[in-house]
Amino acid sequence: MNDRPPSATPPETKLWGGRFRDSVDPEIHRFTASLPFDRRLARADLLGSLAHARMLLEQGIVDPPAAGPILDGLAGILAELESGRLAVDGADEDVHSWIERQLAERIGEAAGRLHTARSRNDQTGLALRLYTRERLAGLVRLAATLAEDLAARAGDHLETFLPGYTHQQRGQPVSLSHHLLAHAWSLLADARRFRTAHETAGVSPLGAGALAGSPHPVSPARVAELLGLPGVFANSLHAVADRDYAAEAAFACALCLVHLSRWASEVVLWTSSEVGFARLSDRVAKGSSLMPQKKNPEPAEILRGKSGRVLGDLQALLVVLKGLPLAYNSDLQEDKEALFDALDTAEGCLTVSRPLLAGLAFDVTRMGQALTGGYLTATALADLLVGAGVPFREAHGRAGRVVLAAEERNCELWELPESVLGELCPELPAGARERLLPEAAARSHRSPGGPAPERVVEQLAAAREAIAAELAWVDGLPEPPLRRALRDGTITADRLA
Amino acid sequence: MNDRPPSATPPETKLWGGRFRDSVDPEIHRFTASLPFDRRLARADLLGSLAHARMLLEQGIVDPPAAGPILDGLAGILAELESGRLAVDGADEDVHSWIERQLAERIGEAAGRLHTARSRNDQTGLALRLYTRERLAGLVRLAATLAEDLAARAGDHLETFLPGYTHQQRGQPVSLSHHLLAHAWSLLADARRFRTAHETAGVSPLGAGALAGSPHPVSPARVAELLGLPGVFANSLHAVADRDYAAEAAFACALCLVHLSRWASEVVLWTSSEVGFARLSDRVAKGSSLMPQKKNPEPAEILRGKSGRVLGDLQALLVVLKGLPLAYNSDLQEDKEALFDALDTAEGCLTVSRPLLAGLAFDVTRMGQALTGGYLTATALADLLVGAGVPFREAHGRAGRVVLAAEERNCELWELPESVLGELCPELPAGARERLLPEAAARSHRSPGGPAPERVVEQLAAAREAIAAELAWVDGLPEPPLRRALRDGTITADRLA
Amino acid sequence: MNDRPPSATPPETKLWGGRFRDSVDPEIHRFTASLPFDRRLARADLLGSLAHARMLLEQGIVDPPAAGPILDGLAGILAELESGRLAVDGADEDVHSWIERQLAERIGEAAGRLHTARSRNDQTGLALRLYTRERLAGLVRLAATLAEDLAARAGDHLETFLPGYTHQQRGQPVSLSHHLLAHAWSLLADARRFRTAHETAGVSPLGAGALAGSPHPVSPARVAELLGLPGVFANSLHAVADRDYAAEAAFACALCLVHLSRWASEVVLWTSSEVGFARLSDRVAKGSSLMPQKKNPEPAEILRGKSGRVLGDLQALLVVLKGLPLAYNSDLQEDKEALFDALDTAEGCLTVSRPLLAGLAFDVTRMGQALTGGYLTATALADLLVGAGVPFREAHGRAGRVVLAAEERNCELWELPESVLGELCPELPAGARERLLPEAAARSHRSPGGPAPERVVEQLAAAREAIAAELAWVDGLPEPPLRRALRDGTITADRLA
Amino acid sequence: MNDRPPSATPPETKLWGGRFRDSVDPEIHRFTASLPFDRRLARADLLGSLAHARMLLEQGIVDPPAAGPILDGLAGILAELESGRLAVDGADEDVHSWIERQLAERIGEAAGRLHTARSRNDQTGLALRLYTRERLAGLVRLAATLAEDLAARAGDHLETFLPGYTHQQRGQPVSLSHHLLAHAWSLLADARRFRTAHETAGVSPLGAGALAGSPHPVSPARVAELLGLPGVFANSLHAVADRDYAAEAAFACALCLVHLSRWASEVVLWTSSEVGFARLSDRVAKGSSLMPQKKNPEPAEILRGKSGRVLGDLQALLVVLKGLPLAYNSDLQEDKEALFDALDTAEGCLTVSRPLLAGLAFDVTRMGQALTGGYLTATALADLLVGAGVPFREAHGRAGRVVLAAEERNCELWELPESVLGELCPELPAGARERLLPEAAARSHRSPGGPAPERVVEQLAAAREAIAAELAWVDGLPEPPLRRALRDGTITADRLA
Repeated sequence: MNDRPPSATPPETKLWGGRFRDSVDPEIHRFTASLPFDRRLARADLLGSLAHARMLLEQGIVDPPAAGPILDGLAGILAELESGRLAVDGADEDVHSWIERQLAERIGEAAGRLHTARSRNDQTGLALRLYTRERLAGLVRLAATLAEDLAARAGDHLETFLPGYTHQQRGQPVSLSHHLLAHAWSLLADARRFRTAHETAGVSPLGAGALAGSPHPVSPARVAELLGLPGVFANSLHAVADRDYAAEAAFACALCLVHLSRWASEVVLWTSSEVGFARLSDRVAKGSSLMPQKKNPEPAEILRGKSGRVLGDLQALLVVLKGLPLAYNSDLQEDKEALFDALDTAEGCLTVSRPLLAGLAFDVTRMGQALTGGYLTATALADLLVGAGVPFREAHGRAGRVVLAAEERNCELWELPESVLGELCPELPAGARERLLPEAAARSHRSPGGPAPERVVEQLAAAREAIAAELAWVDGLPEPPLRRALRDGTITADRLA
Repeated sequence: MNDRPPSATPPETKLWGGRFRDSVDPEIHRFTASLPFDRRLARADLLGSLAHARMLLEQGIVDPPAAGPILDGLAGILAELESGRLAVDGADEDVHSWIERQLAERIGEAAGRLHTARSRNDQTGLALRLYTRERLAGLVRLAATLAEDLAARAGDHLETFLPGYTHQQRGQPVSLSHHLLAHAWSLLADARRFRTAHETAGVSPLGAGALAGSPHPVSPARVAELLGLPGVFANSLHAVADRDYAAEAAFACALCLVHLSRWASEVVLWTSSEVGFARLSDRVAKGSSLMPQKKNPEPAEILRGKSGRVLGDLQALLVVLKGLPLAYNSDLQEDKEALFDALDTAEGCLTVSRPLLAGLAFDVTRMGQALTGGYLTATALADLLVGAGVPFREAHGRAGRVVLAAEERNCELWELPESVLGELCPELPAGARERLLPEAAARSHRSPGGPAPERVVEQLAAAREAIAAELAWVDGLPEPPLRRALRDGTITADRLA
Repeated sequence: MNDRPPSATPPETKLWGGRFRDSVDPEIHRFTASLPFDRRLARADLLGSLAHARMLLEQGIVDPPAAGPILDGLAGILAELESGRLAVDGADEDVHSWIERQLAERIGEAAGRLHTARSRNDQTGLALRLYTRERLAGLVRLAATLAEDLAARAGDHLETFLPGYTHQQRGQPVSLSHHLLAHAWSLLADARRFRTAHETAGVSPLGAGALAGSPHPVSPARVAELLGLPGVFANSLHAVADRDYAAEAAFACALCLVHLSRWASEVVLWTSSEVGFARLSDRVAKGSSLMPQKKNPEPAEILRGKSGRVLGDLQALLVVLKGLPLAYNSDLQEDKEALFDALDTAEGCLTVSRPLLAGLAFDVTRMGQALTGGYLTATALADLLVGAGVPFREAHGRAGRVVLAAEERNCELWELPESVLGELCPELPAGARERLLPEAAARSHRSPGGPAPERVVEQLAAAREAIAAELAWVDGLPEPPLRRALRDGTITADRLA
Repeated sequence: MNDRPPSATPPETKLWGGRFRDSVDPEIHRFTASLPFDRRLARADLLGSLAHARMLLEQGIVDPPAAGPILDGLAGILAELESGRLAVDGADEDVHSWIERQLAERIGEAAGRLHTARSRNDQTGLALRLYTRERLAGLVRLAATLAEDLAARAGDHLETFLPGYTHQQRGQPVSLSHHLLAHAWSLLADARRFRTAHETAGVSPLGAGALAGSPHPVSPARVAELLGLPGVFANSLHAVADRDYAAEAAFACALCLVHLSRWASEVVLWTSSEVGFARLSDRVAKGSSLMPQKKNPEPAEILRGKSGRVLGDLQALLVVLKGLPLAYNSDLQEDKEALFDALDTAEGCLTVSRPLLAGLAFDVTRMGQALTGGYLTATALADLLVGAGVPFREAHGRAGRVVLAAEERNCELWELPESVLGELCPELPAGARERLLPEAAARSHRSPGGPAPERVVEQLAAAREAIAAELAWVDGLPEPPLRRALRDGTITADRLA
């Protein structure tokens, strides 16, 4: 004998209750309800619904007497939300139900025409894409602004020299400008990736319905146009199943956090007693509850740690997508929190990096002291030999032996007696010793992209240009026609500009 | 010239403000404050603080006139929190500061003696361990209880037969009991892992101080005893740096979610039109906002998707730990949200699986129908040939050819004419055809751990015993002496039981 | 007293031996040697070295008598490698050392001039970028070709109808063409991401040296031009520290594998007895060692499983990068195997998907049968009501009740008596019942991107155009000047075209 | 019309060819063949097969005339493999097919009886479990041995003091012994996790068949006993679907690598010019191809980087398992490479850590110098005030002000004039200044688990005991009866000991 399902209780009021005779178990409702986290999509969903309603009106699918109240009602809800007079709350299963309920409470039965020719599957995709784009544009600005801050600091230190490191060992002298700009270029690459993800997200899925489009004469292109989205879905099944934009956005956040973790690691190192290249102002450090002398670079440590979180978010999102058959599956509901956390964390970390950088006072004295003691110009010596015709391999070996000689004498390369240097490296031109001073070596590295001040001046100009281009991109994002109509109060007009 | 840090503003009141002249930047405060998420450690931290204060008293580090108000004050805060009269809220940087502030507001300056001989580094470790253990014990119970539900359903279906699948292809007949118990064993393994992680977390770090212990005559062992923790740290540096327990807990959650994702996948499959082995009651299904006929297994899909989240949490935690030098680093503050999310998700998913299972009505008719058409007893045929002395490889090949013959005739193996069967398999004993009926084949698989009803009866008994042992373990967890003293009102007594 | 390092043994011959007095521990050598995996960079590294040598010649850094043998020697090694006469093998610590040793064996001491003004840090970055670009171009072709195969199959099935699924439940009727093209669009997005990563990798780091450029008059732009790389590094520290291109490539592979896992999941489902929408030819299925009747979709299962591997590779890469300070650190050596595995797996999986798809025979009869029994046209009924003026919410509820009525009668929607339909839905126009037939419903979904055959014809054309554009991009990749010179034998000429 | 599969070609010889009329596509064969990586299971699979054959003999399922040659044949193959006379190679699809082919070539048709009552599903599970256990036992030994090395070094430095760090800032003085032992305790926890995973893997799945056991009178318990496995599967479906042991093993490896990454990070830091607490011998460092003076801690950097790889392996494994329905699916074939890589990497990293540690010469002079300049004993001052009756919070604040006073005077705390100290801290007892010397402070931290030498002596003894217990566990692993029988040549005897 087949099992019986548990006995029936009165059905609830849901968007989809028609064929259901029993209400949802409260535990199940709690588990499946997305309102606690998708409420933040309310604005985006209202914009999407306005565009949908406007399209239904323009295409004659809903006639003006019904469309007018819908448009006005949605615009009213949006205005109240944006002004803070209304908050998204309640027992609704998701933000879409919440909005439809709000609308019905305001305009009555006509609200029931709004969902014509769409499903929550295409609707939620649209809202998530609009929301993600807005956040990504914000991240472009933040990444570029942090790069700008770095460039500004770099501008002050074209002639501040310090060791450049590889393997956390002193390598060759570079300038602080050069060093700071290295981080700026990573941030500019992040800005580019945020823009690319913004473009990926710019495809409207509305009109895909649940998975199979519609028999009504909908115009997905018009919806996209109203919302300022440059593209329209090509395939309704793909449109509701696709989360590539979410994965791209999360990946861009993850790589950005990796970059910040590298910089944060450096801040921790540089502010240690041992390195001492920078001090943190009291405004960006924390003390110890036990050790009274401590001044800890907590913001930098937490910044470094946050990378784990976003790597986890990226993984979460990809795992959710793994193995899902077409078209929509509710697993996709789990895309949101991972994506939101990645966006929030990237935003929070980029934001906090600005005061952290501002609170970092560089100790150029310590930097200068660190230029000695590590034989940082051994390569410069080898290069001088190369200039004198010695093959590089041979020059490298000889410079190594000079280092040993200096180690034995416990002196710097430029302090070695001429005789010793001359014996090991007879090819060296006169005046070679001065060229082994760290600053001289840094200044001599005039190759493109190198640390010589004149090269860094060029680099700084290039970075500033790239930063300006990113900021101009954000500033130049056009206002969507729908937003304009809302501002102008023409949302129910016959024609929109 | 060295950079100057930004100009000074009046210092704030912090636990560590002594050497600071300037207050923390608000952005930095927001970024580094952990109260929004570590507030859930309030109860655990209060218990830890009570044990610490009691130890300070017993060891004579704090004398009774000071210790009494501290103990009473902390007990009062705990009581108010547990009764819901007090909520953790405010601008404090963490839950520890919040508690110390609460205490100071109640008992004044004496509160300042509580933090003697400890640091937030060992304090937070203790609170997190206590909290994690409590949650893990809850997960043992939930996993065992879900296994119990599965066993209960299994008890009803010892003689319900259905295809067992490999590669999502029908393989050999098994019983529904056998199938359901397979999931129960996974959950029992999860319960075991939760217990192991509980044991790992059972080492008290209090007394490690910031990293180097203390000059005061503290007794870490007494603190552990009061809190019912079986172990004490061996090395103070390790104690504050160690997060193995968090990683083990997150891993146990991740593997549990993987198991639930496998079961959830099956629920989705089984409730599809195509498989139809089960139907979902209205109480655990959801409808479509567009398609009126739909009944979607959303809870099962979300359950499957949640695995991504916990895999992400585990990764986040491990990435945070990567590369951190000894001893404490603030990156470790980022352990909490990942761990909390893993614990919450495991709890939520195990909890919701119970009504989901209860809402699953098995369709034994469809199961029975699925036993035909897939030549599920081809192996049984091969085994009969083996019994008649044919080497297995040869028997396997012959059975394959019999399958082809049946396919050509479009009939079941047991419907093949005796002549055909006899020609291909002359060794077959009389009556072989009946033994090719699916149910007969399932019943004949009497090997240990196999699907024959008498074996499953044994297995069910073993599972129930294992479940009972897990539940007994949870029920048998002793009440810590400190809790008893709080209940008895003897927290400031000379001697505790 | 300070510790003493272990006693000295004779030094080895390494590229960097000058200041070392003792040889490397064999265990350490084994652990740090990268030749076993970076050998696959040999061709790319030779091309990079040729470009470097050519630039050194053109810039007058190495004079023609030395540069000539170097160029000829490298060209000779490359030719032997490409023809298979030479294999990369030996005890060298990396492929760069191997090549330099090969060169020295051929041309003697002059080989020592090749490494002038470069380091392994910029050299290995260049080789990895060249290699990655070559592989990514291959992946663009493979993804587009698989999309082409899908489009070709789609072209045969414009009028083959089957259920479209959401939540693995039958939703609305679609065509097989439409369904297959959904996968094609995902692959086209993958192709785009491979192209973007190709562009990201197209920045030459050569000339960055170890981290600080060079005092020699090198021309990084000329090296890039010779190799056909569109960009040049801006900052020497960033150039050697940056692995964004590797992460982007791995991410593109990961998302591609996620897409393939979704398709593979579908293949497993469709070839199950229960769904039966497709059968696998013997050429792409496997049998069971025990169960003679089995025909398992192993290639599809493995394809699905491979997604785990590439998600792991992506994480591995990001974790390696986490927290590394500037500039080069040897952790970066660990970028290679993860990246290689991601590229190999993506290539292998895209490659095998073609015969797998070819071996898939669709069972259109089973597809047609599945159109009944699931009330797939309940939405069509609601849409008809909407067309007759009923608000959608009301129409949805009514259609739900019609479904219940049909369930009670155990009949299809279009089989319901006119009277029943008329009573529940009096607004329905005449002839509505025929429009509830699944095929009619699919044909009526004429919205853009929908399943109606005329829409899919348009979509197919768009997909083919997009595919052709991807393939044209790969075919149109220009031959780098260096390659041309090698082909023309003008590598040592005064001027290159 | 239904599609046709591609045209037929002659069938291949496979273990499962009976019902197949066409051979496998070569691309598909390459993609699905596991021999290239599962060949390393050959020994384990032979042991499993020997136990299976022995059980078939003892249970009378295969009679002595057939069982004898099988046992002798398998023993012969094993002996040849172990002596290196035979290598696993060829075009077989997996190691199981390779072994069965080897056996058939030696003993002919009787080989066909070996596969009676088993499937590759239970067979491969058994081999993987045996293999994993062997590797895990090896990892227990390696982890304990590295801990032993650390303990040995710790034994030399009970009275070597250096700063203990939190937040990479100098915190309080500790001893080098104490510091080194912190790492040892992490390794001991790893050893414990390897043992736990070893136990999890100690459940024999043989006898589960493909998924449903067997009609033959097999004895899974006897197979387990012969192989020295303590447990037997409870449910045949679970037995072939379960990969918890692989996940646990991978997790234990991942956490071990996280620990090693923390130590490796420290090695990189300590050998930097800035910290200088240790120098690397030439045997464990590497030079630069460009910079002659460099001595890079490459092994430590790579060690740190390897953590990414194993975190990726763990994720890969968990992702493979996500969402798989019961029972066996070929996705599980993808468990192997991730697990193997995790085991190999953990083994390689633990192995190389020993010479790396041996090559690390501590510079106790630098350590001593680092004890000054960071006000490491500010906490000691606060503790002295607490001892004099000042509440800790007050004492902490006062000590902070003393630090500021010392900073202003640019002197150490113990160098402050008595008058200054007395003014700020009138409660301080006489002789307090000496107790502010770093070494005195470290010696005064006599709390359990603290840095005072007498405490570290106890700790060292405890660590050595724990290490000895781990090593004793490995040494005490009993030889399985089957191994003994092979050694004694009694594998075909009537009775085994």
